[in-house]
Amino acid sequence: MGEFDLIRRFFTRPTPRAVLGVGDDCALLQSAPGMQMAISTDMLVAGRHFFADTDPQRLGHKCLAVNLSDLAACGARPLAFTLALALPQADEAWLAPFAKGLLQLADAHGCELIGGDTTRGPLTMCITVFGEVPARGAVPLLPTSALLRSGARVGDDIYVSGTLGDAALALRALQGTVALPTDLLNAARARLEQPTARVALGQALRGVATACADVSDGLLGDLGHILERSGLGAQIEVERTLPLLAARANFADGAAQFDAQLGRDTALQCVLAGGDDYELVFCAPPTEREAVAQAALQSATPVTRIGTMRAERGLLLLDSQGRAIAPESLELASFDHFAAAPGP
Amino acid sequence: MGEFDLIRRFFTRPTPRAVLGVGDDCALLQSAPGMQMAISTDMLVAGRHFFADTDPQRLGHKCLAVNLSDLAACGARPLAFTLALALPQADEAWLAPFAKGLLQLADAHGCELIGGDTTRGPLTMCITVFGEVPARGAVPLLPTSALLRSGARVGDDIYVSGTLGDAALALRALQGTVALPTDLLNAARARLEQPTARVALGQALRGVATACADVSDGLLGDLGHILERSGLGAQIEVERTLPLLAARANFADGAAQFDAQLGRDTALQCVLAGGDDYELVFCAPPTEREAVAQAALQSATPVTRIGTMRAERGLLLLDSQGRAIAPESLELASFDHFAAAPGP
Repeated sequence: MGEFDLIRRFFTRPTPRAVLGVGDDCALLQSAPGMQMAISTDMLVAGRHFFADTDPQRLGHKCLAVNLSDLAACGARPLAFTLALALPQADEAWLAPFAKGLLQLADAHGCELIGGDTTRGPLTMCITVFGEVPARGAVPLLPTSALLRSGARVGDDIYVSGTLGDAALALRALQGTVALPTDLLNAARARLEQPTARVALGQALRGVATACADVSDGLLGDLGHILERSGLGAQIEVERTLPLLAARANFADGAAQFDAQLGRDTALQCVLAGGDDYELVFCAPPTEREAVAQAALQSATPVTRIGTMRAERGLLLLDSQGRAIAPESLELASFDHFAAAPGP
Repeated sequence: MGEFDLIRRFFTRPTPRAVLGVGDDCALLQSAPGMQMAISTDMLVAGRHFFADTDPQRLGHKCLAVNLSDLAACGARPLAFTLALALPQADEAWLAPFAKGLLQLADAHGCELIGGDTTRGPLTMCITVFGEVPARGAVPLLPTSALLRSGARVGDDIYVSGTLGDAALALRALQGTVALPTDLLNAARARLEQPTARVALGQALRGVATACADVSDGLLGDLGHILERSGLGAQIEVERTLPLLAARANFADGAAQFDAQLGRDTALQCVLAGGDDYELVFCAPPTEREAVAQAALQSATPVTRIGTMRAERGLLLLDSQGRAIAPESLELASFDHFAAAPGP
């Protein structure tokens, strides 16, 4: 089967929202009046971002989810995406479930596949995703209502959505460096392979959050982007973040037993610097606590308050007694694709 | 140097047109009222679309040019692009010239780099490019003024821009299957490695051409897309296409000598099915010949009339006496990334 047949068969869908979808030199999208387009692109490479033998349906889900997560971080509503795909061979047994996982998630978010490219090569996916946000929002001087990394203010609360660190823990388990009970491994592995993009929460936070980023490279690293772009520092109450590791909270004999068997440092490293979480980290002033709770309720997404923005630059990690923890003591490093390779 | 430093250093530029450029979870673009966004994505893989040791500056040029060519085929004005890049290592000696070639072409077209992704992996580039076209154009019932593959009509002239086949000839020479004089090889190689996207011609053809596609996979294959989407056939006067092979026209002792030394079939195969030309093939009614000539003049791009659209499906190749040539006799096959591998 030729390239064009493959594309046609698996990836040609109706595109009611786009003026023109797959099949021409370009797709055509028209924004509604007063809306801006939010655009993000992510490339996933076999052996780097996922194991080459990952279940293709989960992989199809994940490669769109990581892009939707960027839209979520901006508070954008998903509209459409393009898919560029390099495959070692034109394998229908792989393409069919891959397309299924991808398009099920796309349909769940009303996100149309409007174009793409398929070629032979080392297994690689590159998705570019398009969402929309109103041009004008709650902040009169800003040229957008999108949530940015740059808007945090001194005294803002810092929140994170959902759970943290289970994807990183699953990776360690799959690599054989920690042992997990089967049920916890399966749950953690689902977080690694089928992450949930917090699209509804992101939209609900427009006009509430002052800054937002998605947690793709580890909480501290991605919070660091907010600090850098906002020109501020932060303090994180580490004790508030630890319960977010679901595998630890759900450990058969409790969190203390998890710490005894796998090490509390392992838990901290996964939660604070694990990567692949695809949660949102965001800031909002204390006056908006009720509004944040409403946004969480409305989007059916748990959020946890974990710290406070400070004028002093840098990131202060506080233990349960309010004492500073030296980050070096945790061997934390934000995930860097060109640093020592921690990924699969 | 870490991933984020690399991105910042080479790929962070001012983006006067975008609401927000590189550095947040998403870029933000706002269309002008009445405009539509044309979107295309192309992935280039080392060893498949280019030799891994290709001059990085030329490669930077090419990976944007092939995307601009898709905008040209739609008659869209370039606005912006995203770049996802997988690199075997973070090599400044490679990244600096790559960025230079890429951004020089981007600047020449006012096309802003608004976002991207960098990761370690087999050398791969994926660009998604954004252009704009007016929503309403010369055809009242169409929901766009973009040039599509689907608008050709019976009796339309068929044109191609620029030159054809030199990229494919250069590839054969680099692979050692044909021998070319050095000056002709250098010229042909520049066509392969630094193609010219016909962006100005595409825009000038809006309201003139009835259908358009870019020639990326070979003339006959890409014309085939127009035939398929327009539900028509075509006849091509092969004798009109042969002079478009610059290496043959410029052969020291003339085209006849080229045919004697390299074979007329080689010339035909390169011109009709070579691939990597990034010219435009387009249709326009005979009443628009003056307008086509004006568009060519205005965009400083030569165009050649090579055939006619027919109601009968299929592609008819005619020799200089108007006799049908059997396509099988030419061993033509449109470039298919999953068919037998003709590329580097």
